[in-house]
Amino acid sequence: MDIAAYMAEVGQQARAAATGVARSTTAVRNQALLATAEALDAAREELALANGKDLQMGRENGLDAAMLDRLELTPQRIDTMIEGLRQVASLPDPIGAITDMNYRPSGIQVGKMRVPLGVIGIIYESRPNVTVEAASLCLKSGNATILRGGSESIHSNQAIARCLSAGLAKAGLPENAVQVIKTTDRAAVGELITMPDYVDVIVPRGGKGLIERISRDARVPVIKHLDGVCHVYIDSHADPEKALKVAINAKTHRYGTCNTMETLLVDAEIAEDILPLLAQAFVEKGVELRGCERTRAIVEGVVEATEADWEAEYLAPVLAVRVVDGLEGAIAHINRYSSQHTDSIITENYTRARRFITEVDSSSVMVNASTRFADGFEYGLGAEIGISTDKIHARGPVGLEGLTSQKYVVFGDGHIRT
Amino acid sequence: MDIAAYMAEVGQQARAAATGVARSTTAVRNQALLATAEALDAAREELALANGKDLQMGRENGLDAAMLDRLELTPQRIDTMIEGLRQVASLPDPIGAITDMNYRPSGIQVGKMRVPLGVIGIIYESRPNVTVEAASLCLKSGNATILRGGSESIHSNQAIARCLSAGLAKAGLPENAVQVIKTTDRAAVGELITMPDYVDVIVPRGGKGLIERISRDARVPVIKHLDGVCHVYIDSHADPEKALKVAINAKTHRYGTCNTMETLLVDAEIAEDILPLLAQAFVEKGVELRGCERTRAIVEGVVEATEADWEAEYLAPVLAVRVVDGLEGAIAHINRYSSQHTDSIITENYTRARRFITEVDSSSVMVNASTRFADGFEYGLGAEIGISTDKIHARGPVGLEGLTSQKYVVFGDGHIRT
Repeated sequence: MDIAAYMAEVGQQARAAATGVARSTTAVRNQALLATAEALDAAREELALANGKDLQMGRENGLDAAMLDRLELTPQRIDTMIEGLRQVASLPDPIGAITDMNYRPSGIQVGKMRVPLGVIGIIYESRPNVTVEAASLCLKSGNATILRGGSESIHSNQAIARCLSAGLAKAGLPENAVQVIKTTDRAAVGELITMPDYVDVIVPRGGKGLIERISRDARVPVIKHLDGVCHVYIDSHADPEKALKVAINAKTHRYGTCNTMETLLVDAEIAEDILPLLAQAFVEKGVELRGCERTRAIVEGVVEATEADWEAEYLAPVLAVRVVDGLEGAIAHINRYSSQHTDSIITENYTRARRFITEVDSSSVMVNASTRFADGFEYGLGAEIGISTDKIHARGPVGLEGLTSQKYVVFGDGHIRT
Repeated sequence: MDIAAYMAEVGQQARAAATGVARSTTAVRNQALLATAEALDAAREELALANGKDLQMGRENGLDAAMLDRLELTPQRIDTMIEGLRQVASLPDPIGAITDMNYRPSGIQVGKMRVPLGVIGIIYESRPNVTVEAASLCLKSGNATILRGGSESIHSNQAIARCLSAGLAKAGLPENAVQVIKTTDRAAVGELITMPDYVDVIVPRGGKGLIERISRDARVPVIKHLDGVCHVYIDSHADPEKALKVAINAKTHRYGTCNTMETLLVDAEIAEDILPLLAQAFVEKGVELRGCERTRAIVEGVVEATEADWEAEYLAPVLAVRVVDGLEGAIAHINRYSSQHTDSIITENYTRARRFITEVDSSSVMVNASTRFADGFEYGLGAEIGISTDKIHARGPVGLEGLTSQKYVVFGDGHIRT
């Protein structure tokens, strides 16, 4: 198989289909989503069979238990995919919205219209349900999509792709509006991320290694999410009850998510009072603490933190703890070590809260709230294609709007420039 | 000189300065702009001397008259730079604006705050006044800037840089908030566009060759403006008077600008009536017409247009003319040949106007208005760093807002995720 020729064909087909999707009505796109949900429901047996092949292959290739778990399409996961499609169908359509329409002194009327980006390339790893999630968000926002899943889930992804095709066909949309790449050859990824004529943006979903590789080699803009080294800073003017509640939730609500707190900063002025309470609560939850010298002087049995701990995204029941000198110390630490994902201050002090949200340069800055809230659904975006740690185009949780652009619309009455 | 080491130092200094600029108040940034204006006014002699060196060097190196003209800093151009700084100072500050603040069902309050991008790299060619223009917009929007002008204007740019430094110093801003690269070595550009740790976005300003080269090699997002192949489509339901007025203005108001019409499309139903009038008007203005067969059957003496003419950005008194079959034909031509910059329909028909603005995929779509309006000032942006023909981040004329991003701000009262 000539991968370059195949990918160029996929790209051309996507570009051609994008025009049809962009022009389609809200109702037609919603119909395609709902028809895909029905097709998935009707194809449960086929999906189980295809997924069985992937699982078999995975076991033969020695995938670990966690990988095999992510790969599995249980009936519940199929239910979730179906439910997800219905939810996306029920979201408001971002496309075509005209805003900021104003008259200018010249007499022309100028506004902005929200439009699709065009063709979106999604690169992801083992979880086959991403195929439906990503395709549905791209379709809802009027884009054509090229999906490239992990080679270990190729059969599941192709079975899901058939359901998507059926849904598109039922609504009368171009069948190439969603394409799942048929080859597991890694060269296909290399082609996908270097076709600016056919692909407008790449959204990689997966581990840091994958995303770094793609960002480095891409010739197309990438909406990327690197790591989540999130902080909670407990200020000396914090309400201790809120501080305990938020810090414990930010760390222990879920360990493996990108918005989980990885480093706790405590103002030196309050450290002796609050650190023992915090340490006790964390130890009860089974969280290992790694602390700076000042932390270790207050709490016994804390492992010594190294430079690597301040940079670590543990995704595990481990927490780095540092005593800092007030707001200045906290902001200095965060702006040095944070991955600019999400950082929260716990304080009752108006000026410190105001300074924190202004001076911390992260995609989400919070006051008296758990970092775990940094999420498209919690923020009311209705859905989330990912969380961007970039500043260009989209920052923070990316919903449908992040998959769109705006063009200028000008109305005149024979107006000319003089 | 070790270019890589020098550029890394420039990058580090810019990154460090960016924090100071981002935290500065509106008043301080405006003070720096006004102080720079004063410094330029006081340095007229020094500027003339430095510019004289560049002009002398340019003549020795055989630069053509147009290049030498762009290079020259006349007293009027210095006035314009000073006036530009004052205008930018008077614009509203985009930074810190909080929008869309809403309560979520969880009880948290979520909104978006506008923030600087960080460090912006500007790469431009001969015109030294770009140094002030670009630096002032980046500074106003809270960013640090690294400027790399053409080697032929190095002395002028360094003299302007000293005025910018003086302005920054007077306002108490970090002196590295604006840095003009001191070497003319081309390797510096290669470094500047491949330092994602230090540079957040590159804005190239210059010819298509420069921009294509930078886009190809950059490892940093690029806000780019390629060509402007703009169309006016005269529909059969056009008001002939408006059609003539707009078509002539779109072509002849200025020939060398990116928003000038390069191809005129005329509906076959109205072609025999209106093309002779248009042709006469264009010939009187000295515009050479290159037409399709149907155009040539109606108007005598029109040169035959080739495929290259439909793709051409003439930037000259030359116009391609094509008779098309209604709106469908016009949209098909535009979506194939347009550079997605600006396209306009002349019609009194509501449905056709509505279809045109929806189906033409260009950064500005217009009804009954001259393409010449596609401009940051005309659109009310107050200023313009360029016009983006991309869809990611910024599309169409880019003002201060295009040099910013938005972060999420979350207010809680001890809220945790359950």
